[in-house]
Amino acid sequence: MIELKITVPAVEEGQYTIQISSGQLAGLWDRIKADYPKSTRFVVTDQNLVDAGHLDTLSGGRDIPCYVIDPPGEVSKTIETAIHIVEAMEKAYLGRDSVIVALGGGTVGDIAGFAAAMFKRGIPVVQVPTTTLAQADSAVGGKTGVDSSLSKNAFGAFWHPAAVYIDVDTLKTLDDREFRSGLVESVKHAMIADAEYFDYLESNLDAILAREPEVLKTIAHKNCQTKGHVVQIDPNEKNMRRILNYGHTVGHAVESASNYTLLHGESIAVGIVAAGLIEIELGIGDQARLDRALALLNKLGMPTQIPAKIEEQQLIDLIKRDKKAVDQWPKFVLINQIGQVHQVDGQWAVSVERSVVEKVLKQLY
Amino acid sequence: MIELKITVPAVEEGQYTIQISSGQLAGLWDRIKADYPKSTRFVVTDQNLVDAGHLDTLSGGRDIPCYVIDPPGEVSKTIETAIHIVEAMEKAYLGRDSVIVALGGGTVGDIAGFAAAMFKRGIPVVQVPTTTLAQADSAVGGKTGVDSSLSKNAFGAFWHPAAVYIDVDTLKTLDDREFRSGLVESVKHAMIADAEYFDYLESNLDAILAREPEVLKTIAHKNCQTKGHVVQIDPNEKNMRRILNYGHTVGHAVESASNYTLLHGESIAVGIVAAGLIEIELGIGDQARLDRALALLNKLGMPTQIPAKIEEQQLIDLIKRDKKAVDQWPKFVLINQIGQVHQVDGQWAVSVERSVVEKVLKQLY
Repeated sequence: MIELKITVPAVEEGQYTIQISSGQLAGLWDRIKADYPKSTRFVVTDQNLVDAGHLDTLSGGRDIPCYVIDPPGEVSKTIETAIHIVEAMEKAYLGRDSVIVALGGGTVGDIAGFAAAMFKRGIPVVQVPTTTLAQADSAVGGKTGVDSSLSKNAFGAFWHPAAVYIDVDTLKTLDDREFRSGLVESVKHAMIADAEYFDYLESNLDAILAREPEVLKTIAHKNCQTKGHVVQIDPNEKNMRRILNYGHTVGHAVESASNYTLLHGESIAVGIVAAGLIEIELGIGDQARLDRALALLNKLGMPTQIPAKIEEQQLIDLIKRDKKAVDQWPKFVLINQIGQVHQVDGQWAVSVERSVVEKVLKQLY
Repeated sequence: MIELKITVPAVEEGQYTIQISSGQLAGLWDRIKADYPKSTRFVVTDQNLVDAGHLDTLSGGRDIPCYVIDPPGEVSKTIETAIHIVEAMEKAYLGRDSVIVALGGGTVGDIAGFAAAMFKRGIPVVQVPTTTLAQADSAVGGKTGVDSSLSKNAFGAFWHPAAVYIDVDTLKTLDDREFRSGLVESVKHAMIADAEYFDYLESNLDAILAREPEVLKTIAHKNCQTKGHVVQIDPNEKNMRRILNYGHTVGHAVESASNYTLLHGESIAVGIVAAGLIEIELGIGDQARLDRALALLNKLGMPTQIPAKIEEQQLIDLIKRDKKAVDQWPKFVLINQIGQVHQVDGQWAVSVERSVVEKVLKQLY
């Protein structure tokens, strides 16, 4: 027997910039050219962004190489769409010196990021998120992925953006339901990490819902700070990054059981209430704290109960199949006060007995 | 304008083991279980390996979760095959705690490695190469990829193996043409990095062609040493890793122009002769050195001229479209003596005028 050891060299610390503004989309195409002078830029966007005029704003009316995802939304978040993007780039004679510019919401960012990760073994992606959800959450942190015919994010990669440009003006054209539900991730960030931010949301929700640029910039800033802090410490979700799943264990099950007729944020709202009820059961939360969360979520117009047509047993089955489940039962992220996650033995996700979860689910009907 | 910087943490140096033996395949399934006690193992292989009995040797006759690529070979090295592997894993209820075992030649390793890179954002792959080509080259170094309908390796990832197990007994069943052509990468390794190894190949070629286990283990060892040394220094092919492309610039063009009727090693053999002729033209090589290479390649039964049906202009067009070309002309890796690459200004791939390449191509008919 001959044995050799092959060293995989260390990768140095990297860094990327998030710029948050009102109105920078118009100059961004030239800015990216200046940042990547030797690269060919290729935009991935969707038909909603085209219809809203944002692609024209980015391009300055020029004809730029582009793939438009159509229909927009989860239905197109498939491996087939990612393949079509790669083939469109090949047909445009683009090589490994290309950069993808992802203009859109979470779906566009996830698909474009994954296409960038696998095109010719990886090229840079610049994220230009245009929804409350993507600006708060998905554009930062490097998770990319697409669905198979069997499950969500079956294909994916950790692929950090080369830069993130947030122009809150792009939110002006966002559908009201999308706008509101995307704000649930902001509530989540405040609850797990930043009590002051929670106060800010309570005080400024009217201005947020009126889409005032200054408050939208502030919440984008707060969200990127929280998410950035977490993903810097645990980029590949070995432990701490799990706190970003607050409200998501029950929330994902509700989203799936609704056949995605509930939006992500709407489902997570129910999951946040479930987490609050579990915290009360375990003696680490109280009704007053839950009421504050409920007040915010109600003002956002979010559901805070499980739709009657979803059966409890179906939710339990989905929770058992959670992708982070071990022995068919996942751990839960909980808080012990607003802005502070409940840790047990250094773990950020903790055991909760199935009977407790079942009791809480009954309360949510 | 608000600006934040997000840090992408450094990744620590890693290490993986290559074990070279005669006969270890039989115990390998249990060995991998011991190495990954909490993981579910999933084999990717192809019909040739099944027919040769190697899957049975690995499994010990047990029924193990498995995807068999059929038909074997380049024709199946597509994104569709990679998708089918991921979906087969999902149907077997495999999660992110799985490990893929790639049992086969370069094609199997490339496809299985890429499937591992993108399954649920990445799981480990154990490479068990079973051809002279894969044992010398593709199983080590972390390049994975599959073809699109338009080009080779359009999709891919750098995804280092978790371990490599080389059992030279698997070469006993290898088709003679595959066996011989895979040895061209051994000649290449000797020429770019190891003059003593070149002497060894000259002295032991009969024993190699007789597939004597001890010499096969020795050349596997030498190949892994050379390739391992290079990929440790430059894993993502920023500069030095290019030396592994010795003979490949013209070789890839010949391979493509033959519509892949020539095997990879057969094409690279022609490319190595082309490199030798270029070296003579540039005054950094001589006929005596080229004759030594020709003698080895002839004894391996390799072509050393361009097939008459391939037109020179077609080769020039393909060389212009080389994926490493800048301004439609690639740089070339050359040697100035056996075992030593010719460097210019710290670059391992150097400029060669098109007229020189054209002259050399004419000599190769």
